[in-house]
Amino acid sequence: MLIAWLQEDIGRTDRTTSALLGRSKVVVQGRWVAKAKGTIAGLPVAARVFQLLDGDVSFEAMVGEGDQCSAGQTIARISGGLEALLMGERVALNLAMRLSGIATETRKYIEQIADLPAMLVDTRKTTPGLRVLEKYAAAVGGARNHRMGLDDAVMIKENHIAAAGSIPEAIARIRAQIPFPLSIEVETETLEQVKEALHQQADIIMLDNMPLDMMRQAVQIIRQGHDRTKIEGSGNVTLENIRAVAETGVDYISSSAPITRSSWLDLSMRLG
Amino acid sequence: MLIAWLQEDIGRTDRTTSALLGRSKVVVQGRWVAKAKGTIAGLPVAARVFQLLDGDVSFEAMVGEGDQCSAGQTIARISGGLEALLMGERVALNLAMRLSGIATETRKYIEQIADLPAMLVDTRKTTPGLRVLEKYAAAVGGARNHRMGLDDAVMIKENHIAAAGSIPEAIARIRAQIPFPLSIEVETETLEQVKEALHQQADIIMLDNMPLDMMRQAVQIIRQGHDRTKIEGSGNVTLENIRAVAETGVDYISSSAPITRSSWLDLSMRLG
Amino acid sequence: MLIAWLQEDIGRTDRTTSALLGRSKVVVQGRWVAKAKGTIAGLPVAARVFQLLDGDVSFEAMVGEGDQCSAGQTIARISGGLEALLMGERVALNLAMRLSGIATETRKYIEQIADLPAMLVDTRKTTPGLRVLEKYAAAVGGARNHRMGLDDAVMIKENHIAAAGSIPEAIARIRAQIPFPLSIEVETETLEQVKEALHQQADIIMLDNMPLDMMRQAVQIIRQGHDRTKIEGSGNVTLENIRAVAETGVDYISSSAPITRSSWLDLSMRLG
Amino acid sequence: MLIAWLQEDIGRTDRTTSALLGRSKVVVQGRWVAKAKGTIAGLPVAARVFQLLDGDVSFEAMVGEGDQCSAGQTIARISGGLEALLMGERVALNLAMRLSGIATETRKYIEQIADLPAMLVDTRKTTPGLRVLEKYAAAVGGARNHRMGLDDAVMIKENHIAAAGSIPEAIARIRAQIPFPLSIEVETETLEQVKEALHQQADIIMLDNMPLDMMRQAVQIIRQGHDRTKIEGSGNVTLENIRAVAETGVDYISSSAPITRSSWLDLSMRLG
Amino acid sequence: MLIAWLQEDIGRTDRTTSALLGRSKVVVQGRWVAKAKGTIAGLPVAARVFQLLDGDVSFEAMVGEGDQCSAGQTIARISGGLEALLMGERVALNLAMRLSGIATETRKYIEQIADLPAMLVDTRKTTPGLRVLEKYAAAVGGARNHRMGLDDAVMIKENHIAAAGSIPEAIARIRAQIPFPLSIEVETETLEQVKEALHQQADIIMLDNMPLDMMRQAVQIIRQGHDRTKIEGSGNVTLENIRAVAETGVDYISSSAPITRSSWLDLSMRLG
Amino acid sequence: MLIAWLQEDIGRTDRTTSALLGRSKVVVQGRWVAKAKGTIAGLPVAARVFQLLDGDVSFEAMVGEGDQCSAGQTIARISGGLEALLMGERVALNLAMRLSGIATETRKYIEQIADLPAMLVDTRKTTPGLRVLEKYAAAVGGARNHRMGLDDAVMIKENHIAAAGSIPEAIARIRAQIPFPLSIEVETETLEQVKEALHQQADIIMLDNMPLDMMRQAVQIIRQGHDRTKIEGSGNVTLENIRAVAETGVDYISSSAPITRSSWLDLSMRLG
Repeated sequence: MLIAWLQEDIGRTDRTTSALLGRSKVVVQGRWVAKAKGTIAGLPVAARVFQLLDGDVSFEAMVGEGDQCSAGQTIARISGGLEALLMGERVALNLAMRLSGIATETRKYIEQIADLPAMLVDTRKTTPGLRVLEKYAAAVGGARNHRMGLDDAVMIKENHIAAAGSIPEAIARIRAQIPFPLSIEVETETLEQVKEALHQQADIIMLDNMPLDMMRQAVQIIRQGHDRTKIEGSGNVTLENIRAVAETGVDYISSSAPITRSSWLDLSMRLG
Repeated sequence: MLIAWLQEDIGRTDRTTSALLGRSKVVVQGRWVAKAKGTIAGLPVAARVFQLLDGDVSFEAMVGEGDQCSAGQTIARISGGLEALLMGERVALNLAMRLSGIATETRKYIEQIADLPAMLVDTRKTTPGLRVLEKYAAAVGGARNHRMGLDDAVMIKENHIAAAGSIPEAIARIRAQIPFPLSIEVETETLEQVKEALHQQADIIMLDNMPLDMMRQAVQIIRQGHDRTKIEGSGNVTLENIRAVAETGVDYISSSAPITRSSWLDLSMRLG
Repeated sequence: MLIAWLQEDIGRTDRTTSALLGRSKVVVQGRWVAKAKGTIAGLPVAARVFQLLDGDVSFEAMVGEGDQCSAGQTIARISGGLEALLMGERVALNLAMRLSGIATETRKYIEQIADLPAMLVDTRKTTPGLRVLEKYAAAVGGARNHRMGLDDAVMIKENHIAAAGSIPEAIARIRAQIPFPLSIEVETETLEQVKEALHQQADIIMLDNMPLDMMRQAVQIIRQGHDRTKIEGSGNVTLENIRAVAETGVDYISSSAPITRSSWLDLSMRLG
Repeated sequence: MLIAWLQEDIGRTDRTTSALLGRSKVVVQGRWVAKAKGTIAGLPVAARVFQLLDGDVSFEAMVGEGDQCSAGQTIARISGGLEALLMGERVALNLAMRLSGIATETRKYIEQIADLPAMLVDTRKTTPGLRVLEKYAAAVGGARNHRMGLDDAVMIKENHIAAAGSIPEAIARIRAQIPFPLSIEVETETLEQVKEALHQQADIIMLDNMPLDMMRQAVQIIRQGHDRTKIEGSGNVTLENIRAVAETGVDYISSSAPITRSSWLDLSMRLG
Repeated sequence: MLIAWLQEDIGRTDRTTSALLGRSKVVVQGRWVAKAKGTIAGLPVAARVFQLLDGDVSFEAMVGEGDQCSAGQTIARISGGLEALLMGERVALNLAMRLSGIATETRKYIEQIADLPAMLVDTRKTTPGLRVLEKYAAAVGGARNHRMGLDDAVMIKENHIAAAGSIPEAIARIRAQIPFPLSIEVETETLEQVKEALHQQADIIMLDNMPLDMMRQAVQIIRQGHDRTKIEGSGNVTLENIRAVAETGVDYISSSAPITRSSWLDLSMRLG
Repeated sequence: MLIAWLQEDIGRTDRTTSALLGRSKVVVQGRWVAKAKGTIAGLPVAARVFQLLDGDVSFEAMVGEGDQCSAGQTIARISGGLEALLMGERVALNLAMRLSGIATETRKYIEQIADLPAMLVDTRKTTPGLRVLEKYAAAVGGARNHRMGLDDAVMIKENHIAAAGSIPEAIARIRAQIPFPLSIEVETETLEQVKEALHQQADIIMLDNMPLDMMRQAVQIIRQGHDRTKIEGSGNVTLENIRAVAETGVDYISSSAPITRSSWLDLSMRLG
């Protein structure tokens, strides 16, 4: 992936740097600086970008993944061949800026519910090609990961239920086909559906877009003697309402916002 | 790329849909709906995602690329095999939501300078792997494209100048090596540098992070008898200051913000 | 995969057929014949091999996947260009012979326990590159699939327990890191370990190489008030002892033998 | 190939080991043990599997390729990072078990004819993707290799003869097109065909499914003054009849059985 | 290969044509014209280049492969989307010009020996990546193909003999390892070596750089009672001396000159 | 690319060398010798071919890229494993012979115009797959590079003009779509077209196939007050007429002949 991303940026070659330096190798030193306050994520990936271009580049993070940085803070020291530094700069920074932006945003949500048992989880709304990295950044920011893709667990949604005719029928058909260790999650929108899913021993029940009151009732229904059924609350979670959702007693709160509504954290590389 | 993005999401297989449907083919109809107001981009890409999964899927855009949509508006009609629709849904939506978010944000900048000759151009701060698509979305939103990568034009920056010793030396060395049709752009931070770049017949001169006043002076210097030198203003452009930059007389204003600071436009697929 | 397998066999080209036919297209008809009794699997894959070489080839299965065939029985009719039939013959037959061999062997195990609730499941002992196909053949023969690879579920084995220090520690560490919907299975060799796994709410408990008596006790311990914990019996399962294992009350019996100890079912293609 | 095979097993990641160890590196020692008597093949391939995952792993074979092992014998010593050992274990073992199974079976055939000049050769009935390795294992077990694929030599079979009209016509057409150094082999089922092939100077004549008596006659016909024509006997060769076939005087006996009818040799890895 | 070659030429995109035409499809007609006299080869490959870009392009050859053309002659008619025609033009023409140049040059050599039994064969001195096509062009021009690569036959050269110690030792070692149908060729520079190779039953004996007189003697030695040993003459073959070499009685004359010393045949595409 | 080229030559394996050496490693020394006078290019690429096969091979160039060599001169020293030297020999030599042939031919053209300001530039008539290397060889021989492919600059040709209706229309349409830093070149065949291109501020004007007299007039027209418009002369440039073209005052002379009409420079490897 990193190689393809470098090729995307470099194309036929870095005309400027290649023409300027030819075959001479100029070694320089520099640092990465945060231009705004935030939570850092992605520095190990940035390091690998430079490694791919030139094994002699040294990229040393000055902060840990998930650490807070302030504006103007040096977050990494770098030294190595000028050509590799200039050819890798944009890809490395683009990745770290995007990932740090996600970690920064995620942390804001986490801070709202830090003292409650509910955990924030991510979704499959991620930039194509960056799923692993963006979910990694969410984890760095404090979230737990939901399934990484369509193969990690069964998730029975409205359209599956419609195709099968009912929740029990959907669960039965699917359970007969899948590798037996996989978990089954069911999206529910009514208490009736919650009960059906519960009766069919769904491993996870998602309460989708329910009013807080109904969500509380659903949690109560599920908890009665079914200690191991996991409950996920979902739907238009914001910084403003996440605490209220958490207080309904759900185990997990899923939200795409920390990934889809975050800005890049501004970082820059300074040489010499 | 689309295939790799589908694989990223699907992994070993869509356990839910595959197990539910087996080899039976269920044909359904549906539509894509905008859940917020914005500028649409990326529907042709979404169409290809579904095409890759199933050549029989029909995805018909109801709005043109760059059209404004309102919340609740149907922006596309879709019909075809349920399996393809469910397996492609997330990747197709993720792309269209990201691209429409960029087009929406770009348009806000464009509206500030629509009556002035200066044009907004993008930068290389794009999500790795999505450069072409994100720059396409910026164009849909009204921007012009800057170089697509390091090979499209020479861009002599501070570090290149330092390595060469001076702007004239950098230009001379590079000009002797590159395919002769390539343009040469020079980043300048002082009027002195502007004059040097001008004297060496740089094709494009970037005025980087200059105060508005200095920028105006630079424009004046360059315009004296050098009709074909292009001028690019750059550095912390915001919705608030873009008009003032445009009024300095530069030809192009480059900004990464429409891409790095935009949220996804919320879109959803509804079947049945 | 199919393309790579064709390349493996064809190499620079099918010297015989290419030199003989040149650009002339000769259409022939033929059939596939079983040369021994068994359970058929893999005909859809064989059909795709020929399709890849020549879209005009027709390959029509005369028996369903999982059907029993007798020696001499025609199992498919084929017609199309001679070149494609001869170039694809070996790869297509090799696949169908291997897969039918597995289905045939699997079925023998299934017949031993058909009237009992326990289900036969496969393992990760599959030929590299053929995991999906070989597990498919096992399912055609009547088995359920266990996880497809290391990512489908957590499986805590002896070496993991040793690295963590104890079963509870291993489960705790892993549960904190994985996408939350994933199941956790624990391999146990003593009743003590069974109790530990049970106490930590393992989703699946494997009874590995336990004497039948101990296995029965383990089942009893687990069943006490934990309806949803799945139990898997494992270790040197043979056609002779599989029924006894099933009678201990385990939910699943895992065995690699149907895949690693099966011979190919003899099939041949006859043209003209 | 090895990389693709590792990906097949690992998928998104080894959830258990990755979650357990995180970034900490635990170095362990262990050994590979044969659980049954047999002929070992494939240890160099197993070593490369681990090398691909972690260059620091040491895998030292205690027996040579083709050596006999007894049940319980240590056949290799291994040490290195626990993560690499656990992630590579299954693929490495699957390969070595499959290849050792082939070598073990091949050797049984070889022992039947060890004192005769005839040599056992393999066929193209090999598992797709493993042709080179399975033929290597056959050679380790004592067989010679026949052609590796359709490009290594011309092999004129029944269907080619039918398409050309006659053996002489088939040979003439093919000889005019192929790179001139390639050998031409003809499959024959009657003495008439043997004479035709001989008259056209086929380099190799295969006696396919002939009764032993006819085979002897064919050998006699070919040997008369044509020292360099190679003779291959073929068709339903078994451990019981291979010696009789060899005694007809053929140079080579081809059989797929050592590959298609062999079980895996049971091997296991023990750490700590 | 064709796709990689198109990417090499097109890079990020055909800026001119894409920008000019956008999404509008303009259909045009045109023809390919030979600008010099020669032998045509490669038109089917040119046709596939256009097909890859646009399945609707029609490219109809007006002359057969190997036909002679005169300056100004139309050799193909083409019609289809302007974009595909302009994007594929250069790659298609480059291939056809190169291949026709080879066919044209080869034919000159063939004409020198057309009435003699000796056949011209090519060598492995071909442009990397174009081996199959360049050898195809040589065949179109009238040559026979020698081995396509290092795997098609054994060729024992001076360095192999040195490594083994002697010709007999080299042949013996190699014969014991290779798939048995492969031919063995030996390069000889003295009559002594010729006799050794003959004695070890080499399938092909190359007479390398021998004076014509010695070559004649070698042929005589080999022909004595060894009808099936093939003889290849080699070394600095020119248009001037090829006939003399052929008259020594060798079966094959190998030369790289028709491929390495040929100019491209000038062809052009004219639209509208 | 180098890997694909090695695979093309090696195929399934180097039967001769592999069978001869098995796993034993024989280290030898040798040298590369020029068999004719010429200009050397491509030795660094040859070195990488051997490196890819065996990291221990040492390949030391005795001459610089672009140096003249005489017949019999040692141009490189090589030492390393015999297997790698023999397996890589043909690909490495083929590349260096082709590239040195181009450099040798290019230099002949350069010598005709060495004292004039005009520069020789190459074209897109290059062997598919070798564009970068062949253009590199042209540069080694003294030429400048024109665009590397269709994306490096806009080149408006006859067919584009026809599609747009006129030169001004073509330039206007294209300029509105392309990344703004790209240069625009226009092919002209008449003085009228030259004036149109000039009026639309084309960055480069190509004078295509113009008589020398018209070419001189065109240069005069363009030079009047437009210092920065670059002028390229083109069309059937030969060793005989290149000086006359240069004397018209054009900046660049483009010709495909040094690449398409050059023979390989004869080089050989001698071991031991």
